[in-house]
Amino acid sequence: MRVDMSEGNVEHQDVPEDYRTLGGRGLTSTIVSDEVPPDCHPLGPNNKLVFAPGIVTGTQAPTSGRMSVGAKSPLTGGIKEANVGTRFSQTLAKLGIKAIIIEGQAEDGYSLLKIDKDGAELSDAGEWSGEGLYKAYDEIRGEFGEDMDVCGCGIAAELSGANSGIAFNDTEGLPSRYAGRGGLGAVMAGRGLKFIVADPEGAPGVEIEDEQAFDEGRKKLVNALQEHDVTKPGGTLNTYGTDALINVINESGGLPQRNFSVGRTEEASKVSGEEKAERIEERGGERPHMCSPGCVIQCSEVWTKPDAKDPVGVLEYESVWALGPDCGIYDLDTIGELNRACNDLGLDTIEAGNTIAVAMEGGLAELGDGEKALELMEEVRKGTPLGKILVNGTEFAGQAFGVTRVPTVKGQAMPAYDPRAIKGIGVTYASTPMGADHTAGYAVATEIMSVGGEADPLEAKGKAELSRNLQWSTAVIDSTGYCLFTAFAVMDIQEGLEGMVESVNGVLGTDLTVDDITEMGKQILETEREFNEAAGFSKEDDRLPEFIREEELPPHNEVFDVPDEEIDKVHEP
Amino acid sequence: MRVDMSEGNVEHQDVPEDYRTLGGRGLTSTIVSDEVPPDCHPLGPNNKLVFAPGIVTGTQAPTSGRMSVGAKSPLTGGIKEANVGTRFSQTLAKLGIKAIIIEGQAEDGYSLLKIDKDGAELSDAGEWSGEGLYKAYDEIRGEFGEDMDVCGCGIAAELSGANSGIAFNDTEGLPSRYAGRGGLGAVMAGRGLKFIVADPEGAPGVEIEDEQAFDEGRKKLVNALQEHDVTKPGGTLNTYGTDALINVINESGGLPQRNFSVGRTEEASKVSGEEKAERIEERGGERPHMCSPGCVIQCSEVWTKPDAKDPVGVLEYESVWALGPDCGIYDLDTIGELNRACNDLGLDTIEAGNTIAVAMEGGLAELGDGEKALELMEEVRKGTPLGKILVNGTEFAGQAFGVTRVPTVKGQAMPAYDPRAIKGIGVTYASTPMGADHTAGYAVATEIMSVGGEADPLEAKGKAELSRNLQWSTAVIDSTGYCLFTAFAVMDIQEGLEGMVESVNGVLGTDLTVDDITEMGKQILETEREFNEAAGFSKEDDRLPEFIREEELPPHNEVFDVPDEEIDKVHEP
Repeated sequence: MRVDMSEGNVEHQDVPEDYRTLGGRGLTSTIVSDEVPPDCHPLGPNNKLVFAPGIVTGTQAPTSGRMSVGAKSPLTGGIKEANVGTRFSQTLAKLGIKAIIIEGQAEDGYSLLKIDKDGAELSDAGEWSGEGLYKAYDEIRGEFGEDMDVCGCGIAAELSGANSGIAFNDTEGLPSRYAGRGGLGAVMAGRGLKFIVADPEGAPGVEIEDEQAFDEGRKKLVNALQEHDVTKPGGTLNTYGTDALINVINESGGLPQRNFSVGRTEEASKVSGEEKAERIEERGGERPHMCSPGCVIQCSEVWTKPDAKDPVGVLEYESVWALGPDCGIYDLDTIGELNRACNDLGLDTIEAGNTIAVAMEGGLAELGDGEKALELMEEVRKGTPLGKILVNGTEFAGQAFGVTRVPTVKGQAMPAYDPRAIKGIGVTYASTPMGADHTAGYAVATEIMSVGGEADPLEAKGKAELSRNLQWSTAVIDSTGYCLFTAFAVMDIQEGLEGMVESVNGVLGTDLTVDDITEMGKQILETEREFNEAAGFSKEDDRLPEFIREEELPPHNEVFDVPDEEIDKVHEP
Repeated sequence: MRVDMSEGNVEHQDVPEDYRTLGGRGLTSTIVSDEVPPDCHPLGPNNKLVFAPGIVTGTQAPTSGRMSVGAKSPLTGGIKEANVGTRFSQTLAKLGIKAIIIEGQAEDGYSLLKIDKDGAELSDAGEWSGEGLYKAYDEIRGEFGEDMDVCGCGIAAELSGANSGIAFNDTEGLPSRYAGRGGLGAVMAGRGLKFIVADPEGAPGVEIEDEQAFDEGRKKLVNALQEHDVTKPGGTLNTYGTDALINVINESGGLPQRNFSVGRTEEASKVSGEEKAERIEERGGERPHMCSPGCVIQCSEVWTKPDAKDPVGVLEYESVWALGPDCGIYDLDTIGELNRACNDLGLDTIEAGNTIAVAMEGGLAELGDGEKALELMEEVRKGTPLGKILVNGTEFAGQAFGVTRVPTVKGQAMPAYDPRAIKGIGVTYASTPMGADHTAGYAVATEIMSVGGEADPLEAKGKAELSRNLQWSTAVIDSTGYCLFTAFAVMDIQEGLEGMVESVNGVLGTDLTVDDITEMGKQILETEREFNEAAGFSKEDDRLPEFIREEELPPHNEVFDVPDEEIDKVHEP
């Protein structure tokens, strides 16, 4: 589906043969690479925004409700794929839509794109401009029907913020699932598009070329997910959610706190998954919970105020960390309200937390001052000059406030693992085309959780190979529509991996093998890296910031010492 | 002289043999390249700030009171040389100082470095922190003596602004001569250094190896300068100053106005050099005037309010343009006050004018609202969040205010020539290692003023060669200490060029010929480009912004259409 915002036209096109076997990230990155000039201004008329559900998304494949959103990023200046788990992706797939390409720019105002089984049309969305997304989602469901899937961008995007995500509905209809990273909300708002509403009613469903292969594969994968300690019912993710990592990573000495100045504190346990699960139970929130139907892992939740009031949606590990310990804040209720503000304004939580931490170091508040952090969010809502600084992310705030301890790569802020204490993830931050991104090659799985082998997190050697293999396989998983968390199981259980590939073959009618994954992943990375190179990136952009290489992080008192040549081996083995 | 700000030490070192024949830009770029890690944070502990007078500076050579200041730039992220005409440079040279290297970082507070014939020492400069530079310069001269030379950074630098220059005294002692471009003020403040005071008394003078060669060369150059229409007494520069260009460039259709949206207007003549000279005469200001002793061109002036009140110093063409027509402001008194504010705060006028124009397009004020522009300057003085946006320059403001028409290259704002109407200067903007900089290879001389040959400004062909030759020769002139304006004469008068080279030989005791200039300039450019490459620049950074390539500029309705391959030929012929 091609939506020309300059003309206000929606056009349906047949899927080109070249794109037939692509989905998710493989498809968004290919389309962006084929159609977006790498040297264009990300907010100018020549950028395009591409939505694509994964290959198996919308089928009975387990834990596969993922969607990729791609464009040239206003935050990094390079290609971006942001990935989100939401029923929206399943509805789109079931409506027979392989991808939506948003192009051109409306002259003024904002539109809403409504998609259903009969087609799609644009209408005026001006009434929701400047409004918080919780209220807007409520009103949109009120107007179009409670069962609608909704995605949209918020006030942060209307301010052209380089930190502005795209919100998608969770299963409660709340705007708590985010294609958060890289400022894609501003690309959406920059086209003049504010919301997409997708109606699941009567959607014909995803065509499956080989039902038997699909079914056999799917079952093998379900078995693996139900067997692995991390993904099984009652397993780590199911019981405590992603936030189970707070204690684990803090214990490892690699939980960056107080703007990346210390890697382990006693206070961290106050915001752990264990603590949070207990609170949710006391309050009558929900846990475990799915981010989209058909998930067998169920790591999500509904966080609320006491007495189950004012549901926020999920508080993920990365969000809790960024809005919490990285800002010196160790109170779950404050973190919950900060997360609500991010969801409501359309901010990526990882970037927003880092931004606040840097602003605090720059003198805007004491580290740990949660009330002030909440006030800063209101500056964004009001669109004040301070809000315009904060909405542009961590590196921007660092420059505005004269801070040199700025944890970014390619302009994107680091997630919740300090590369000085967990060096493989540092290699991923440095070398992925996405900017600092843990999901691009999650070396933490091996370094900390001993999944897919073992590796000493403090050791610099061998981390290029670890990161490379993970980056390639991740690019493929992000294309299939399977959640990245399925990787925990398939890295350790070969039959699960085979099942995953078979399910993809079932949908596409292809005969891929496990051995093809490497080549497929490599190809996607190459497409993305070529775009970045044409956009001006060189290997010198594959570096961590100076302070990570020079300032020791307690308690291990290590610096990031993976040599540049080792990092370069990720892409040039 | 090496000043370690971490330790508060000043050390005098012998000039290494490799550096003996270098000066000005050749020396600052070599030292920065040798000593500054290209991947360091420009405001972190590893950047260094280097001051170097030119080779013949401090001698009787005409129009040679130039100084180079170098560092890694907070504005571009690459190497930077900013060049300024001031007696300060002559005093430094006469004191026998080849270069000052400021390194390390004071833990807190600001210092003043006092240099005289007996040595140098640091003292506390806290009393001037947060104070405007006109007042501070007054007070410093009051404290240290009226005849002192002073350089310093202002409030903009204390705010770590990527647009912060280093001010030097003019012959009245006003802070109106600037090494303005690239944010070097923030590098100075980032070391903890606020002022340098140089005492000319008893300075031994510059050693000249071959007095006769020097003297003969000097005379030939003086003759050429006094003969050429642009540089002679009563010639263009002497009569109207640099601002003589307003009418000329407006007439050519290449004077960018209202944030680069039109290249010619009827209003431009209101701020022309002709108009300005008349006003100065009426008011009892001064024109012509020298920026430093020994200048035979004398293009400077002292602009004042009516009745010769409140002298500002010079209003250069680029400043008048940036703070005037580019912001839609066509009133010399408003421009004068804006220029005073820039001088007082320590802002580069070119960057500041572009920033205001972009902020106006972003909705902060109507283009043309001079009163509002003056208010914006006060936001910088007060250090408000809005001030912190504005002090970081044009590209930063563009991002904060969601503007896509942002005239920058490598993060540095364009000077007063639109590359769509004067294409050779566009090739220089794109390909110089400095970011958009007219002085790096002033193709306008040939394209508009028919100096050094002729070239059609609207023609794309042949501009790589034109820019390349100018960039090479400029790098040499910037190293000699001669003002770039001597180039007008020596490009047309061979004997002047020979005299220039002979005067350099006289000082150094070398036997360079005119034919050596190319190789010397090429070498300097290569040093600078290697630094930038190691800092992450690629040929994709040698590009003009999208709107310059896509939006037609009236009245010629041309876009910048020099192909990328042609631009790349500047450095790879």
